[in-house]
Amino acid sequence: MSSPSSDAAEPAGGGLSRRRLFGAAGVTAAVVGAAGAGALAGRASASSTATEELQNSVPFRGEHQAGIVTAAQDRMHFCSFDVTTDDRDDVVAMLKEWTAMAERLTLAQEAVAGGAVGLNPYAPPADTGEALGLPASQLTLTVGFGPTFFTKDGKDRFGVADKRPQALIDLPKFPNETMDPARSHGDICVQACANDPQVAVHAIRNLARVAFGTAAVRYSQLGFGRTSSTTREQATPRNLFGFKDGTSNLKAEDTGALDAHVWVADGDGPAWMTGGSYLVTRRIRMRIENWDRTTLMEQERVIGRLKGSGAPIGYADEFDALDFTTKSSKGTPLIDMAAHVRLASKENLNGIEILRRGYNFTDGTDGFGHLDAGLFFIAFVRDPRSSFVPMQMELSRRDALNEYITHTGTALFACPPGLRDGDADAYWGSTLLS
Amino acid sequence: MSSPSSDAAEPAGGGLSRRRLFGAAGVTAAVVGAAGAGALAGRASASSTATEELQNSVPFRGEHQAGIVTAAQDRMHFCSFDVTTDDRDDVVAMLKEWTAMAERLTLAQEAVAGGAVGLNPYAPPADTGEALGLPASQLTLTVGFGPTFFTKDGKDRFGVADKRPQALIDLPKFPNETMDPARSHGDICVQACANDPQVAVHAIRNLARVAFGTAAVRYSQLGFGRTSSTTREQATPRNLFGFKDGTSNLKAEDTGALDAHVWVADGDGPAWMTGGSYLVTRRIRMRIENWDRTTLMEQERVIGRLKGSGAPIGYADEFDALDFTTKSSKGTPLIDMAAHVRLASKENLNGIEILRRGYNFTDGTDGFGHLDAGLFFIAFVRDPRSSFVPMQMELSRRDALNEYITHTGTALFACPPGLRDGDADAYWGSTLLS
Repeated sequence: MSSPSSDAAEPAGGGLSRRRLFGAAGVTAAVVGAAGAGALAGRASASSTATEELQNSVPFRGEHQAGIVTAAQDRMHFCSFDVTTDDRDDVVAMLKEWTAMAERLTLAQEAVAGGAVGLNPYAPPADTGEALGLPASQLTLTVGFGPTFFTKDGKDRFGVADKRPQALIDLPKFPNETMDPARSHGDICVQACANDPQVAVHAIRNLARVAFGTAAVRYSQLGFGRTSSTTREQATPRNLFGFKDGTSNLKAEDTGALDAHVWVADGDGPAWMTGGSYLVTRRIRMRIENWDRTTLMEQERVIGRLKGSGAPIGYADEFDALDFTTKSSKGTPLIDMAAHVRLASKENLNGIEILRRGYNFTDGTDGFGHLDAGLFFIAFVRDPRSSFVPMQMELSRRDALNEYITHTGTALFACPPGLRDGDADAYWGSTLLS
Repeated sequence: MSSPSSDAAEPAGGGLSRRRLFGAAGVTAAVVGAAGAGALAGRASASSTATEELQNSVPFRGEHQAGIVTAAQDRMHFCSFDVTTDDRDDVVAMLKEWTAMAERLTLAQEAVAGGAVGLNPYAPPADTGEALGLPASQLTLTVGFGPTFFTKDGKDRFGVADKRPQALIDLPKFPNETMDPARSHGDICVQACANDPQVAVHAIRNLARVAFGTAAVRYSQLGFGRTSSTTREQATPRNLFGFKDGTSNLKAEDTGALDAHVWVADGDGPAWMTGGSYLVTRRIRMRIENWDRTTLMEQERVIGRLKGSGAPIGYADEFDALDFTTKSSKGTPLIDMAAHVRLASKENLNGIEILRRGYNFTDGTDGFGHLDAGLFFIAFVRDPRSSFVPMQMELSRRDALNEYITHTGTALFACPPGLRDGDADAYWGSTLLS
């Protein structure tokens, strides 16, 4: 499901695609100069299949939702919503509208056919317009439902309390976290990833627009640079500690491992989640100033890898296996006992593996002369109780990295399976709500 | 000065470029996958000159600073600093260090040769590393000095009070603004623009890093998508109201108009500013929810252009001249008397023109269920007293757009001229401080 297809395809609903709206010449101009697209296309390099691929669309439908094992796009806009009504029908109506819009948006179409330029000049446009002319940019939109969607303040708002999966726990309090409630949790989340941030922001903004009266933005987070690779074709990016991040991440090609560690299997819990996954977010504030005043040797000890190449300490290549047993001539382990890569390794965690999909962020300043910067950690797991929770308990207790990070936001969402091709009745959450 | 050159060039100081650090094969891998670079290069599309151009370097030196008439890059990280010392020598030392680093960074080099991987493992790295392997991405770094750099609380901290240009005014209070002091003003600003946000953030972060003890981050603003074109080659991007923005902007090709409206001329004020420009910032919060519930007709009346094409109302092409005189069959002007494009036009403003260089932003949420989104307005002018101030006074009083916007941050900085080729003694601010 992560293989991009042509964005020239029309959805079942028909209508003009954003690219067609302007015709061939217009597309060239729009792609050259429209905000954000310049970085993708420059002067319309039709000769470059690589550039075109980054502009293409990712199939919206499939066994699983897109945006999980899809090759990690470069930019992200994550949004958590509070449902502001107790009316189940309103929620279902919104989710159906979201679904139709989301499928169109991932095809580089307006949220509603003709919406941006006004189906009726006396009505508000049905698309906000700022993505007109921009290519699909591999946009994926991934939806999830938080614990409070099932029960809030003891109340079963939408008649789904008995369908709450046991795996959708209230995450425990971990050591070394200072959670901001305003940046945590939420009833519904949408993860928008794209290679053009204007495309991702446009998608979230239009979903939030039509949610008016039914759901409201609880928080949103822009991620400017990806920190994970999710396919073997992608090279490993760097986080704001300057280290390659995610060398050992699960990859889309590891289908067996994905079945074991990412996708909810039949019998794992309620049937509506089969083929889905659990999304964990952690807004991790990095104390980059403290880090930047630390020696290279200490930085590499803390991480357990070399900063330049990303290779395990004692080795030369990024993808050399982590060597947890060999000791240096001084009798100390090559990889420190508290090094991040050791503690986060499946060897240390009885085989736990997660699919990471995080993004670097910079949100202004903290008011104390520093950048408010860090990593918006996203992971997809089959069951957080047996994966993320024990991993984070281990890391929060022992990781040498804790001196330089604080977790400031957290959430857990249940992401249902994908919508199947041709299933016109399916919508986001229909396995739960129908 | 806006024409990109090869980023393979070595600076006078020598040292490895980030691209060379990994060798040709490494570059391919890094460009493919490193955070942010994917959007530029995809799978190393060496065949694409357009993509390569967006990765190239922009000359750091010239008559004027880069980042003013340079073709507007797609992403921005703007940072305002407070100087935290009263020691002029410390400030000069920091500005010299900044200058050397900035020139290297714009060439896709580490802030200090070998810095990221550690000149000395027992010392902190002299580059934070997160841009290793990323191309120059047309990075420009533009410096400016605010009024408080000259006098703060009545004190001439650095012995330059008598060099404060009369044009570097304390901006007046305008109608319809709710200024946040924490997002306004500052002693020194650095505008980082690049086609890869990781490159822009890396640059600001490294300048902030070495400023420790001398200057501290007052605020920083990430802009995810440009809202201006500054060359005729660039197509007009869209702002978050969904309209093309900056159709009538001054362009790099208009050298006569730039001399008249952007560049400080000999005799305009103190000699140290000749060849420089004044940078105005306005953080403009857009009430996008209100806007999105407004009819297309009203949106187009408020702006004065058509949403789809960007053409003036009554015309078909974006670049058709604005027609302020023709009336409709109903006897009303085609372009409303309070339309934004009418009030901001040089025809209405006695010939005032400014060079705009703004960026779309989304900073989480406002806490009331909306995205905190808008436009970080940046303009460069020869003299704000005769350009920005009367323009903003007119707009803030009469613009129909005021119903949908609030200015929440403001600043004015004096940007000195560029550093000339081969002038090894010059540094950021040297015409002011030497």
